[in-house]
Amino acid sequence: MGSGFGRLFRVTTFGESHGGGLGAVIEGCPPGIALDLAAIQAELDRRRPGQSALVSTRKEPDALEILSGVFEGTTLGTPIGVLVRNKDADPTAYAPFKEKFRPSHADFTTEAKYGIRNWQGGGRASARETVARVAAGAIAKQVLTAVAGIEIRAWVLAVGDVRATVDPADVTIEAIESNPMRCPDAKAAEAMEACVRSVRAAGDTVGGVIQLHVSGVPAGLGDPVFDKLEADLAKAMMSLPASKGFEVGSGFAGAAMLGSAHNDAFLPAEGGRPVRTATNNSGGIQGGISNGMPIVARIAFKPVATIFQKQDTVNTKGDATTIQPRGRHDPCVVPRAVPMVEAMAALVLVDHWLRQRAQNG
Amino acid sequence: MGSGFGRLFRVTTFGESHGGGLGAVIEGCPPGIALDLAAIQAELDRRRPGQSALVSTRKEPDALEILSGVFEGTTLGTPIGVLVRNKDADPTAYAPFKEKFRPSHADFTTEAKYGIRNWQGGGRASARETVARVAAGAIAKQVLTAVAGIEIRAWVLAVGDVRATVDPADVTIEAIESNPMRCPDAKAAEAMEACVRSVRAAGDTVGGVIQLHVSGVPAGLGDPVFDKLEADLAKAMMSLPASKGFEVGSGFAGAAMLGSAHNDAFLPAEGGRPVRTATNNSGGIQGGISNGMPIVARIAFKPVATIFQKQDTVNTKGDATTIQPRGRHDPCVVPRAVPMVEAMAALVLVDHWLRQRAQNG
Amino acid sequence: MGSGFGRLFRVTTFGESHGGGLGAVIEGCPPGIALDLAAIQAELDRRRPGQSALVSTRKEPDALEILSGVFEGTTLGTPIGVLVRNKDADPTAYAPFKEKFRPSHADFTTEAKYGIRNWQGGGRASARETVARVAAGAIAKQVLTAVAGIEIRAWVLAVGDVRATVDPADVTIEAIESNPMRCPDAKAAEAMEACVRSVRAAGDTVGGVIQLHVSGVPAGLGDPVFDKLEADLAKAMMSLPASKGFEVGSGFAGAAMLGSAHNDAFLPAEGGRPVRTATNNSGGIQGGISNGMPIVARIAFKPVATIFQKQDTVNTKGDATTIQPRGRHDPCVVPRAVPMVEAMAALVLVDHWLRQRAQNG
Amino acid sequence: MGSGFGRLFRVTTFGESHGGGLGAVIEGCPPGIALDLAAIQAELDRRRPGQSALVSTRKEPDALEILSGVFEGTTLGTPIGVLVRNKDADPTAYAPFKEKFRPSHADFTTEAKYGIRNWQGGGRASARETVARVAAGAIAKQVLTAVAGIEIRAWVLAVGDVRATVDPADVTIEAIESNPMRCPDAKAAEAMEACVRSVRAAGDTVGGVIQLHVSGVPAGLGDPVFDKLEADLAKAMMSLPASKGFEVGSGFAGAAMLGSAHNDAFLPAEGGRPVRTATNNSGGIQGGISNGMPIVARIAFKPVATIFQKQDTVNTKGDATTIQPRGRHDPCVVPRAVPMVEAMAALVLVDHWLRQRAQNG
Repeated sequence: MGSGFGRLFRVTTFGESHGGGLGAVIEGCPPGIALDLAAIQAELDRRRPGQSALVSTRKEPDALEILSGVFEGTTLGTPIGVLVRNKDADPTAYAPFKEKFRPSHADFTTEAKYGIRNWQGGGRASARETVARVAAGAIAKQVLTAVAGIEIRAWVLAVGDVRATVDPADVTIEAIESNPMRCPDAKAAEAMEACVRSVRAAGDTVGGVIQLHVSGVPAGLGDPVFDKLEADLAKAMMSLPASKGFEVGSGFAGAAMLGSAHNDAFLPAEGGRPVRTATNNSGGIQGGISNGMPIVARIAFKPVATIFQKQDTVNTKGDATTIQPRGRHDPCVVPRAVPMVEAMAALVLVDHWLRQRAQNG
Repeated sequence: MGSGFGRLFRVTTFGESHGGGLGAVIEGCPPGIALDLAAIQAELDRRRPGQSALVSTRKEPDALEILSGVFEGTTLGTPIGVLVRNKDADPTAYAPFKEKFRPSHADFTTEAKYGIRNWQGGGRASARETVARVAAGAIAKQVLTAVAGIEIRAWVLAVGDVRATVDPADVTIEAIESNPMRCPDAKAAEAMEACVRSVRAAGDTVGGVIQLHVSGVPAGLGDPVFDKLEADLAKAMMSLPASKGFEVGSGFAGAAMLGSAHNDAFLPAEGGRPVRTATNNSGGIQGGISNGMPIVARIAFKPVATIFQKQDTVNTKGDATTIQPRGRHDPCVVPRAVPMVEAMAALVLVDHWLRQRAQNG
Repeated sequence: MGSGFGRLFRVTTFGESHGGGLGAVIEGCPPGIALDLAAIQAELDRRRPGQSALVSTRKEPDALEILSGVFEGTTLGTPIGVLVRNKDADPTAYAPFKEKFRPSHADFTTEAKYGIRNWQGGGRASARETVARVAAGAIAKQVLTAVAGIEIRAWVLAVGDVRATVDPADVTIEAIESNPMRCPDAKAAEAMEACVRSVRAAGDTVGGVIQLHVSGVPAGLGDPVFDKLEADLAKAMMSLPASKGFEVGSGFAGAAMLGSAHNDAFLPAEGGRPVRTATNNSGGIQGGISNGMPIVARIAFKPVATIFQKQDTVNTKGDATTIQPRGRHDPCVVPRAVPMVEAMAALVLVDHWLRQRAQNG
Repeated sequence: MGSGFGRLFRVTTFGESHGGGLGAVIEGCPPGIALDLAAIQAELDRRRPGQSALVSTRKEPDALEILSGVFEGTTLGTPIGVLVRNKDADPTAYAPFKEKFRPSHADFTTEAKYGIRNWQGGGRASARETVARVAAGAIAKQVLTAVAGIEIRAWVLAVGDVRATVDPADVTIEAIESNPMRCPDAKAAEAMEACVRSVRAAGDTVGGVIQLHVSGVPAGLGDPVFDKLEADLAKAMMSLPASKGFEVGSGFAGAAMLGSAHNDAFLPAEGGRPVRTATNNSGGIQGGISNGMPIVARIAFKPVATIFQKQDTVNTKGDATTIQPRGRHDPCVVPRAVPMVEAMAALVLVDHWLRQRAQNG
């Protein structure tokens, strides 16, 4: 259970970090969409290890095979099966963890849950699992552009103590991709890179924050009660490995505000858009439903749990021991998490777009 | 769509703030659980308007009727139908909003979504909708206590700029309920009350933060990928009216930390518990699965949108106008949101407890 | 679990034959549909006990209360809560069954499943449970007529050995409702009535077959694999109390045919319909998807299990005993099952209509 | 949509008859089950074309690759990804159907639904789609044997006018597999073979009936309302290509019976089984819940639509034309449908077994 996401545009994933490969079945994709297959692969490349000096050196081409649901480049409306093979798994690096639980990893909880665990890698808890999400999200993105003109951007807002200063309305995909940090504030990006290099040198890791910005969302997406748009976005983002927090619009800062400052006054139509708001503390969502303003959210990621330092832990019998991992891991997850955040946002939005069309035409 | 929550212990709600009433169908409840009906009503009373000088004065007894699924006080395993009547609806207070959209309310988005709107109240977007959740959550709480010894507590951590200082391990239900603020730090509670009275006097509102603390959770609840325990909790909390942010364990602060400080070292068994961690930055969840430590989360709530001040807005034709609401509303949502947070946590946990029993025995 | 039906137009029911009442939450109904409330009540009256000399004499007005989701007679798009109270429950008639299992009833299996049973009636296994389905189906019917021009008819095709002879294309609602048997072949109806009166006099019961005929279905509804239209119809009908068989188009007779006789040749367009078939052995569905021809199916119902004759059984300890029920039961289920079959067909079709709009516009 | 089946043991399939291959993701499998991989492949071989002179000559090895979820032969509890490649697709045989609709195939309805169609094969409507189901069902079978001792058998009961006579209690897997017809009545099997050879020689096809018999089912599986065990079995079977009817226990014959003859008297415990019934007109299910007696059902299959005879049809413009298919098809579907029926029964039962454990322990 728990490997499916979405009600109408539904993605069901499989695969472990070490094994035959990872993939997904994507159900409910509208037919007749001409897919740009190179653009899908490009999203996988943004997520791929080995893409820069800031990330894991594991060598995975992550070449995507589309097994079904697409005919002569166009979606058929039938399930799209996708597969990425594992090429550079290294089980020997994991041998020490066969009988010891790595702190703040999922080794212990996996064993507590299932009573069995493939110790040769992170299994389903590995960030490698997100390959399948990014592939599915890349398709979702193209559907959203084709049917609704929705554009999704994410970027690194903070790493450790370094925080970018940007005007979200000005951020371009080029600015985001202009550095391996994926931070559109070039100066902050440099400081972030320095921070990442420094923690890596110390065998340590550091956390960060990603900002999500979605424009072109029509008013009316989302449901009023449990499936509020921000609720489904929160679930989507908090299901990403290493995420610890989610906020929309004003977020936690909003909790300290007065209503008179927080309320977003409605302004008359302008430039074809039926309604605008003077501010956007709502983050583009009111009562769980999009209001046509940009959707703005931020996601906090903890420092990666694999540090190359000696740590206290217990073995599978529960006795005290120590552990000092080695292997190929990321000193900071956020550069590679940017395409993951975009993918999950795309999955939420395409699902709600289809839901809206189903019920309200 | 969007009015159902949970896969095995599934709650489906209905009802608007103005109309026949609110209710829910609760499917999947294990049979043979002797319910304390007074305790369920007591949870509704914690959520009820009119319970103190700090909340809305709407007079709703919120008396719960159980229509099915319970025989001689014991659950049958069949769906439990519950109903609460609306008694004190006042449509006249809403007449001005028939043709004007209240800022930061769901009037505009509801109309954008459905093309129709019951203007006589907040409809499904009203916080009154949470009556049904709290009733269902109260049953879930009793199931969790009966089958698993899980205990759920929530309290007010912050209102505006005032923040409580407490050791979560020491917080008792008595301390939480000892003041109408539901803040176990008595001194902070006083300051919060003063803050709420002051904003109310100004026709304004203020936001706040609620802390969630769940103890007695067995290791193994939650799923590794999309249905991570923190993801389902995030969705649950972000589906509550007025919530703007969710964080688990270290949360947003964790994004600024180093891995060497953030990792939770495992410690050997002690006092019957198989494994502990030295710190709890994970918030009781690792890789989406509970590790047996307390689950710790915080939820940010914005200031209530109904302020008794004149504001800019547009009418249903899109023309500029102003609005100055009146009626019976809460100056701060957090005291009444405490039982809502607990209810949603209970719904998530009971569902995952059943899921765990299904797959892993 | 198991009390919900449908993916987009989703009905979740609750209630037992003896208790506070029965009801449902109907999610996903398109907004803006003007409901004919009298027509909904009329469907419940077709299902009601006491409507004729051929059915149970239990006196239930089955007056429907709509609790939410409808404003000034029009659907809001929000969940429609409906409730019917139990008025004439008679637990004393069930006292003998407290410790004895009635043959071919669900007493034994309910207790085997849940370990507890409300012995004061049939519980969820009572045909009374279908009140909620018929209410939901009546709304679904009106939606189908409003949005798609789909018309659903069902009638009694056989009772015991008596079988009607009719041309489905000629059957009108008036002909169906012209006799309490709901059989449009007046002569067969008389023979069926005689059969029912005779078995009732003997304290016995008899089975029958209902024919379903749906016209105006656009081509394209249904999904190719698990959710084939006939599969969802089969589930819908086999979920009705006492149903034992389902067939579509040629059905079981088709198993003895040759392909050359069974294939439905396509004919060119005529009268606005893009494509027709010369025969309709497919029953309006090919590869799980509607082809625009009428959907034709038949459902077999067993004789009601409550007979007023002495029968061998066991008690709750498993010891041999005998039982001779009394009470108010139907000698033949099919006259009252006609509106149930129509309701379930409507629920399947409205759901697939919304699914088709979601994915394919 | 519509490519997923099951709530807890959930199978999501993908793939078309012509393309990269077919596969499935199987979620919710209990961990720690040692799989017999050869037995899984053996089930695929029972379904495979080219296995005998009675079936299609398409040469597909249907070698199964397990991509995830299994470690050293044992289930991990994580999703099991399975893949079968297409090896012998022949698009040229389908060229004539690019612009003509084959009668009683899904060409027309697929195009009506999606507005696009991969004309190079039957797409999702091809019986080849069932490869993935049989693979998943083979795993489900092993789980059922391991956890519950449930044994599933199916066999050919009728082909055209030929009907087998067997005592279900005596039917062994050896008897079923002793002839390519999969009919345990050797004499009837011979007559069936003769029938199939004769229709094949005439370029024609013929239908048949399969009997399902499940023993060792504990009492208590199934849900009382929509998810009755017979309802889920009906959906499962009616989702198989070419199926036209489903009946359980007495089935359509039961509709002509009196209650006094139909009721299954309960008998006291014997041989460790708590309760038995004197007859089994209920087919092992009462009120939607298994009663511990064998589950007995029959499924009708129409004659295969591909006949090598000239037939009237229309082209994609709707104009009259004729068509005479060629290619590699089955003259009768039932021998290969036996493992499909068993697979679908296994999927239904393992899902309900997990559901029962979830709610009722």
